[in-house]
Formats: sequence, C-alpha cells, structure tokens
Amino acid sequence: MKSFMKHLLIRTEKEKEIVNITRDVGEAIIDSGIKEGIALVNSMHITSSVFINDEESGLKEDFMEWLEKLAPTRATPDGYRHHRTGEVNGDAHLKRTIMGREVVVAITDGQLDFGPWEQIFYGEFDGRRDKRVLVKVIGE
Amino acid sequence: MKSFMKHLLIRTEKEKEIVNITRDVGEAIIDSGIKEGIALVNSMHITSSVFINDEESGLKEDFMEWLEKLAPTRATPDGYRHHRTGEVNGDAHLKRTIMGREVVVAITDGQLDFGPWEQIFYGEFDGRRDKRVLVKVIGE
Amino acid sequence: MKSFMKHLLIRTEKEKEIVNITRDVGEAIIDSGIKEGIALVNSMHITSSVFINDEESGLKEDFMEWLEKLAPTRATPDGYRHHRTGEVNGDAHLKRTIMGREVVVAITDGQLDFGPWEQIFYGEFDGRRDKRVLVKVIGE
Repeated sequence: MKSFMKHLLIRTEKEKEIVNITRDVGEAIIDSGIKEGIALVNSMHITSSVFINDEESGLKEDFMEWLEKLAPTRATPDGYRHHRTGEVNGDAHLKRTIMGREVVVAITDGQLDFGPWEQIFYGEFDGRRDKRVLVKVIGE
Repeated sequence: MKSFMKHLLIRTEKEKEIVNITRDVGEAIIDSGIKEGIALVNSMHITSSVFINDEESGLKEDFMEWLEKLAPTRATPDGYRHHRTGEVNGDAHLKRTIMGREVVVAITDGQLDFGPWEQIFYGEFDGRRDKRVLVKVIGE
Repeated sequence: MKSFMKHLLIRTEKEKEIVNITRDVGEAIIDSGIKEGIALVNSMHITSSVFINDEESGLKEDFMEWLEKLAPTRATPDGYRHHRTGEVNGDAHLKRTIMGREVVVAITDGQLDFGPWEQIFYGEFDGRRDKRVLVKVIGE
C-alpha cells in the first residue's frame, strides 16, 4: 500500500466564499502515483467545509443564502454562547456542520472516479486568513 | 492491497424517494473478496444522497417532510437562483446536502461491520431517471 | 496493508450530550501500530453522531439549541410518524443526520493529522443506554 499527503493552502478574499478545488485535488492524486484507492479531502479548520456539488454560480449563491437562514450570522458578543470566548464566528461552526468537513472520493485508473457533475469545493465561512485543506491518498 | 469498484444502477419511480441499498452493497463486498478494509458508497449525482439510518417507513416519511421544511421545493423559474440555468431542482441540491453524499463503512470478517439498526439508503430528490451509486472497496 | 478495529463503549448520563472522544481515538491509532493511513470513526447507532469541531463549552450548548430548533423534540405518540412504532425519538434520527454519522481522519507519522482546533466528538441524542463507536484503521 502506498500513501501520500498534501496540504492545499487557501486564503479567501471574502469572509464567506465557495472555492472550486477539484483541479488541486486531481493534481495531488497524480502526484501520489496511486492508481486504485481512495482520497480523503478535509478542511483542517472548524469553520470551513469540503463538499461536493455542482459548479454553478447561482447555486453557490443559493447555498450561502440558505445557510444564512439555517444558521444566521450574529456577530455580536451575545449572538451565540460561543461568543463568550471573544470570537464572533459561532455561525461559521454551524454552517460548516451543514456542509460537512470532508469528502472521501474513489480513485480508479489513476483518476477521480466521478459522476458527470461532481466537483469538489472548499466552503469558507470565516475567511480572509490562511487555511489548509488536507488531501490524504491511499492505495496502489 | 486489493481494490474493487462497482456501480449500482438506480431509477426511482417517484421524483423523491428513499431506497434501501444495504443488500446491494453487501453483495459488492462479497464480490470484492475483501475481508478487512473499508467501503466507500457515494452517489455519483449532486441531487441525491447515500446515508445510513433505520429501515422504518414512518421515519422515511418524516425525513421527506423535514427536508421539505428545511429546503422547500420551489419548482418555478425564480424559486432558486440555480433556476436561471433552466433547471428547477435547486431544492434537491440542498436536500442532498443535509442527507450527505456518501458513507464510509467498515468491513470486518468479510462483512459490513454494522450496529444492530444500521441500513444504507439512497436518497433521491430529482429522480425518474438513470442514476448511479459508486461502491469502492479497498483492503485485503 | 494492516487493519485494526476497536469498539469504544459509551453511556451518557444525559439523554442528549456531546462527549469528546479524541483521546480514545488517538489511543486506538497507537494500538493499531499503523503509521500511514486513515481511520474511520462512526457511531454504530442511528440516533447518535460522530463529528469534528471545537472543544468549547459554549459552542456545545449552541449546537444543542440549534439542533432543537432545526429538529424539535416531540416526545409524544404523534410527534413524528416514526412514533407509530412506539418510539418517541424521531428528533434524534434527524439531529444525528445534521451532525453526521462518521468522520474519516488521516494518520500521518503514527498520529491524527489534525488542524490546530480539530477534536472528535460523539453526539448522543437518545442516551442513557449502552452505545458503541467503531474505530477502523487501515494503512501501514
């Protein structure tokens, strides 16, 4: 069994932003030299997500509006109990929970084994700072 | 390390439907010949889910009603921004996000290593067409 | 390839409770002797979760309040359709769905390959009874 690990470095311009990382993950898989196996792709932070959906700008806006409804930003000292720590990003912890921390993807014939529309995204909910995505590939 | 891949083909009769695929996944694991390892089971589409819960008809109705509340069907041109593409399935992208794209399950002694009530389901939110579920098994 | 499996036994005092299991998972990884690979950590039950977030008491209360809003407890015979079975835990099935069944984590140099704040939690939504978390480690 072979294994390979790589960190992707991400710094968004906006506080909340969805970034397509499919190409970066695909390159990590090529770098790994692994032809059959799986890749784990996860955010290393607790206020951002890695998820799979469609590359479509309207949908990305829909996601952000929907998340705001399910887990509203309340950037005040008493907006969430978590804010007693001095943070004001309680909503980001909840939004990330809806979207998920990680994806696990199949590698077949040295490539991402994907359906026609699957794309991998990094969802940032507390951005404008350096963040990392971990790609761990195992297989042969 | 051995690896094995299989596509399950699914076409639901209803637009939104929950289908138990535990037996199909179990058969793929037997076909793989892998005794110790893990299996990734994921929808290859972005408007459907694979998840684990209980085989109970009332609960399946509860899931559908609950998802409709959290991510309402709005099958009109301006129901979601995503509908500017001509699609009217914005809700299906959101519902699938709540339920999840994939599960990763343990294989021990050649079998699904499951708790007493765990069952694997395919959750379709934009159905009546051919869809695929990927099963990737790695181990020994 | 090596593989290793362990069950963690959990019995919460409260019906709904969030328990940090990072140390237990770390010990299982040491016990496995695996230096490079991945670990799957999943609840073996359908009314509880395994998820990754921050060890912060205010945030844990925020999670519980938020889940109660998204998936209210209705412990009456007609609170959910699932209650026709005699159970009154329909909300726990929904809450667990939001938080997720499992996490997959990377093992690098014999350790959990985590970001600075990542901690693994067991989220119980129908507790006060014996439950199990499965840890499956594969790698070399």
